[in-house]
This record gives sequence, C-alpha cells and structure tokens, in this order.
Amino acid sequence: LVSKLPDIGTSIFSLMTQLAQECGAINLAQGFPDYDPPVALQQALARHATTPGHHQYAPMPGLLRLREAIAHKTARVYGVSAPDPATEVTITCGATEALYAVLAAVVHPGDEVLVLEPAYDLYGPAIRLQGGVPIYVPLEAPDFRPDWDRVRAALTPRTRLIMLNSPHNPSGAVLSAQDLHLLADLLRDTDTFVLSDEVYEHMVFDEQPHQSVLLHPELRERAFVLSSFGKTYHATGWKMGYCIAPAALTAEVRRVHQFLTFAVSTPTQHALADALETDTTHDQSLPDFYQYKRDLFRSLLAGSRFELLPVPGGYFQLARYRQISAEGDVAFAQRLTREAGVAVVPVSAFYHDGHDDGLIRFCFAKQDSTLHAAAQRLVGL
Amino acid sequence: LVSKLPDIGTSIFSLMTQLAQECGAINLAQGFPDYDPPVALQQALARHATTPGHHQYAPMPGLLRLREAIAHKTARVYGVSAPDPATEVTITCGATEALYAVLAAVVHPGDEVLVLEPAYDLYGPAIRLQGGVPIYVPLEAPDFRPDWDRVRAALTPRTRLIMLNSPHNPSGAVLSAQDLHLLADLLRDTDTFVLSDEVYEHMVFDEQPHQSVLLHPELRERAFVLSSFGKTYHATGWKMGYCIAPAALTAEVRRVHQFLTFAVSTPTQHALADALETDTTHDQSLPDFYQYKRDLFRSLLAGSRFELLPVPGGYFQLARYRQISAEGDVAFAQRLTREAGVAVVPVSAFYHDGHDDGLIRFCFAKQDSTLHAAAQRLVGL
Ligand SMILES: CSCCC(=O)C(=O)O
Ligand SMILES: CSCCC(=O)C(=O)O
Repeated sequence: LVSKLPDIGTSIFSLMTQLAQECGAINLAQGFPDYDPPVALQQALARHATTPGHHQYAPMPGLLRLREAIAHKTARVYGVSAPDPATEVTITCGATEALYAVLAAVVHPGDEVLVLEPAYDLYGPAIRLQGGVPIYVPLEAPDFRPDWDRVRAALTPRTRLIMLNSPHNPSGAVLSAQDLHLLADLLRDTDTFVLSDEVYEHMVFDEQPHQSVLLHPELRERAFVLSSFGKTYHATGWKMGYCIAPAALTAEVRRVHQFLTFAVSTPTQHALADALETDTTHDQSLPDFYQYKRDLFRSLLAGSRFELLPVPGGYFQLARYRQISAEGDVAFAQRLTREAGVAVVPVSAFYHDGHDDGLIRFCFAKQDSTLHAAAQRLVGL
Repeated sequence: LVSKLPDIGTSIFSLMTQLAQECGAINLAQGFPDYDPPVALQQALARHATTPGHHQYAPMPGLLRLREAIAHKTARVYGVSAPDPATEVTITCGATEALYAVLAAVVHPGDEVLVLEPAYDLYGPAIRLQGGVPIYVPLEAPDFRPDWDRVRAALTPRTRLIMLNSPHNPSGAVLSAQDLHLLADLLRDTDTFVLSDEVYEHMVFDEQPHQSVLLHPELRERAFVLSSFGKTYHATGWKMGYCIAPAALTAEVRRVHQFLTFAVSTPTQHALADALETDTTHDQSLPDFYQYKRDLFRSLLAGSRFELLPVPGGYFQLARYRQISAEGDVAFAQRLTREAGVAVVPVSAFYHDGHDDGLIRFCFAKQDSTLHAAAQRLVGL
C-alpha cells in the first residue's frame, strides 16, 4: 500500500495528550477545555437521547431547526443578513469535516491554495489529498499578522483558495477590518475563494469585535465560513461544526459532505438547537470568560523566564523559552511534559517544514485551578 | 466554481424522504428503522451526556474501551482471532466516513476500483473524488450474485481495490464461503485490496451464517471490513461505524481519518461501549427479528401484482412492478409515493448510468403496523 501521506505521523495533539497521560502531566497541549459544556446543554442531549424518533438520519445538510438557529445567531452576532438555512448552512462533523469538505469540493488537482503559516496541522495534508499544492506564506512573530504584499506576490492564476484563520491557531492573531478590506482588493479580479476558519470567533479580547469575513459583503460572496460548537460550547468531543457559504458554494460542499459523512448525530443536533433557541447570552459571555483566563495565566507566568507573546484572541498562549533552554521546540516540549509535568505543543508542528522559532503553545482553556497548578510548575524553570 | 461532481444531485435517499414527507406517504425508501434503539442504549447515551469529563475529544482512532469491545464482539461472532484494538480498529462517523476514508487512503489518481453494480450510491462519486476510475461489473437479477469470471476479466494491474457489500444493498444478496474462496484465488498474485462493506452483517436469513471477509485469513490480510452501529442498533442517526483492517492498512486509514473528522462523538462512543460490554445477545437476536419482518412483508404483498425477488439478507425487498406499470422506475417510484402514499427507492439510483430494470426497493426495517399499512396501499395496485 503506497501511502498518500508518507510524511504524516500521528497528530502532535494526540501525541502530546498521550505523553501527558503517560507522565501524569497537566495537559495544556491539545486544544480543549478541562471543564464541561453548560449543564442545560448536557441535559438537552440527555433528553434527546431518550426522545422517541430522534435516532435516525438527520437531513443530509443538518436539522433544519439547527440551521435556522445558526442563521438567527449569525444575524444577531454580526448584524449581517442571516444566511439562508435552506441553501447556505451545512452541519458537519466538527469544523474538521467542514474544512475537509470545502477542500475536497473546491481544490482540483494542480490547484494552488494559499496557507498563512504557522497553520493548523490539517490544512497542508488535506490540500495534498486533493492533489492540490499548498503555497505557504509566512506570518512573522511576535504578532503573526498577514503581510498582504507577500500574499499578493504568492497569488497566481492557479490560486483556487486562500485559507484564513482568525482568531489564529496557534498565535491568537486576529484580522482587522482593514485586513479584510485589503484582501478583498487583492481578490477582486481573481477566481480565488476564501476559506475562513473562525472556530474561535467568540474569543476576541480587549473590547475588539471579531471581524468575521461575513461582515465584508464582497468577501462573503466567495467565502466558506466555518465555526465550531465544540469550541463555543466547551464540547470538543461532540464533534459538531458548520459551514456558511453562498448557495452555489454550499451546493458543492454538500455534494462532498453527502459522501463524507452524509449527516451528523441527530440527538446532538437537537440539543444544540435547544441551546441556541433558548439562550442567546452564552456566546456573549465568552470573550470575558476567556479574557479572564488569558489574563490570569499571563499574570501567573509573569515571574517566569518564559517570554509571553501577545494574545489578542483564541485560547492559546505562545511563549518563547530561550532563556530556559537552547533545545529545539519538540525536545523542549517533551522535556517540559516529562520533567516539569506540563504538556504543551511545539509550534514547529504548525509548519510544513518543521520551522522552529523556539516557541511553545499553552492552551489556557482550563479551570483556574489547573492554570494555577501549571504555573506553579513553570515559574521555577 | 468548477464542480468535481457535476452529475451528482441530491441523494435519492434524501429526495425520496423529502417527497414522502411532502405527500404524507409511508416512507419505505431511505434505509432506516421507524423504531428506536434499545432503551438501555438510549439511557446509556443520556447518562454519558451528563457525565463530567465525557465531552472533549476522544482519541483519534476512537475510545479504547469501544475498540476493545468491538474486538471482543468480532471474535465472539465470527470465531476468528480478535483484531488488535490498538492497531486494527478505527471508529468513524458512520460506515460512510469509513468508506470515504478507505477510498481516500488507498485510491491514487488513475487507480481502478471494481464496483459490483447495482451499488450504494456513494461508491462511484467517492472513488472519482480521489481521481480513481470506477470499473463496473454487473450483478444480474434476480439473485445478484457476483460472476467471478466477469470480475477476473475486469481485473488489471491498475486495480487497486475491489468493493464488496454483503448482505448487498439494494438486492439483499449474500456472499458464500465459496465466493470468498474464489475471490481469494483471483487476488492471490495481485496488489488489489478489498473493501468489504458489511453493515448488514446481522441480517442474514434462513439459518445461513454471514460470511464475513474476516473469516477468510488470506482475504483478511488485504481487507478493510466496515460495519455500522447505526444498522445494528437501530440508530442510523447516531452516525457511528468502524473499520477493521490489518495494522499497516489501518495506519493509512487513520492518516486520512485524522484530517476528515479527527474523532467522533465521545458520549456516543461511551454509550455504545456500555451496550457492547453489557449485552451480547442483541446482535444474536437480529437475524430472527428481521427475518420475521421480511416474511411478514412478503406475505402481506403475496396477493399484490408486485413480483418479489428473493431476500437472503439485509433489510430491503426488491420488487418488479411491470404488471402494474410500464413506466421508468423513477417515474413509478414518484407516482407510488404521490398516489399510493408509499415511498420507495428506484433501483436505477444504484447504477452509474441509470440502468433501469423496472425494479423498486422497499425498506422493511419498519414496525409491523407500518408494514401492514403500506401493504394495504400496495395490494390493490
Ligand atoms: C483535533 S485535536 C486539535 C485541537 C486543536 O484545535 C488544537 O489543539 O489546535
Ligand atoms: C445515508 S442515507 C441511505 C441509507 C441507506 O443505507 C439506504 O437507504 O440504502
């Protein structure tokens, strides 16, 4: 069997979680909370788990009531026209499936896809599985903001898609309205689509609004915008995400989604629809909730020898460890897990060529007590 | 946006379910039961939905306890050596994701894949999305058994994979031990893999055992064997399936699965593990349960003008309607839904070229009362 991804090993997230478990380390590596979804949401799932008739295939694009709730929420949060639930919203098995489905739908063999790097580890391999060619445009520390001149220089007539991710994993960088404006200018006369991975949309700090691509009418026309109930509801294991895109683009995503998973969990969709229909305050509470955690974690590490990079959004903290060690970031991350008992992700895992700037990533989506305990182990280093 | 699947519309299953709803017809079209999963399983999901710590990412290949339970069950049911849960079992978002992941992992551009036709509607498009070439080998009514000479004639050095499906959707045909033997002979000196879609494994009738590919050691070495909790537990909407394959093949499936969905619902995996660990009789009860429904439905239609084909397995009944109408099968299926109030699937939907033998498919995975009501509408035609 000839591998299509011979260079791809087990994902760094799995590896570090496994190592954390083996070492009994505090796991600040893989991006998930160590707290549970809202109790009302848990109870909603329990209710639908025992509701007669809620156990067979959902409609292929998702339950209509959930798509409607997403449409309402989108209009409420961004003040934009609601996407049409019938033709513009598709429910997927996490944002992961949405990412893959968009790439499989859009990328033909030989097409180029612009990836701002560092980037989430699936972007490159998922593009390559379509026969596409990832073209990497670097984002530079410490602020990891896109250099649109470099993006312009990388655009060719074969550029089928550009992948955005704001707030950005791993850096937390967020796009500004001006960024969207510049990007729209760049793309105006091209056939390039936009995949906007906005799974951390409700984690933008310091009174800034999240600049969704949906806010820019010209970009919205050519964009697939992804979000994740896993991130928004502290339920990464429920594996529920969605894609909003204009009808013609959605039709192509669904053509693939139909064969990728066909549909996703019916009781879970009902539970999330309940949550969206009955509570419009949860997402509004998230910026403060996570900003508090960011600030707590940063203040706890203030006396450490880690150099903390700015975190405008998301739920990750990047840190330079050069004052502590000259090791490569993989070696340092492993040693930190084994010896200090705190698991982290080496940022080189977000580069296709293992580029190593001496940075590690902490996930601060953790209980305050977890952050305290981790910081205690980190400050003495 | 240039479509990769310009000829693919909404799946016939969705269309017929939609039409059934619009017409208030009895839905014997899409393959799902109109009864619920066992109450203990529903309660297990409710329990895990409110269990702290059961809401974040499962391990990428699936919860270990569920993979272990699958390994035990496989050994118990088939009397074969258990697959290794660590390296040979992967949990997927329904058998659908498993099918797609195997195809994406195995099929390189230009590879040929043998598909015995009629075939489940995703096989062809999912092969084409990999740049593969589906090579169709016909199965002939009324028994739809593979003609291995035709398979031999279709084999070339580019044949990467052959897709099996026993019990077969839509015909219910089942492979015999002799079939597996002949296939093993054919493949012995080739590099051709086997994808064996066995989602109806517990629905084989008339005292016959299901001939899993796992029973044939030589085939097992080159096979991806898929099954579905949705079919076995009357929970098609829970979207849980799995793939059993030798370690080297599983490694490639996981490389793709990692980027397709990463993992599937944690609480649902716990619930299914509970079910498998505590009850080993459920699957044993299924052949009788479904044979009773098959026999009931056939006896109810005995006085009709439908010509019923044999049903050795699965949960579908094929019928010729030539004594009732000379229409094409799509037109007839639509008229049956609208005018007689019984939704069915036209069998031409299972052919890449719309080949039409004047056959329709009924799903008999329905409450006895539903089968009675449907039959009442069908016998007078
Ligand atoms: C799917 S595991 C990765 C989770 C995540 O989003 C991250 O850690 O970056
Ligand atoms: C995923 S919808 C199709 C269900 C099914 O297995 C069938 O009707 O054949």
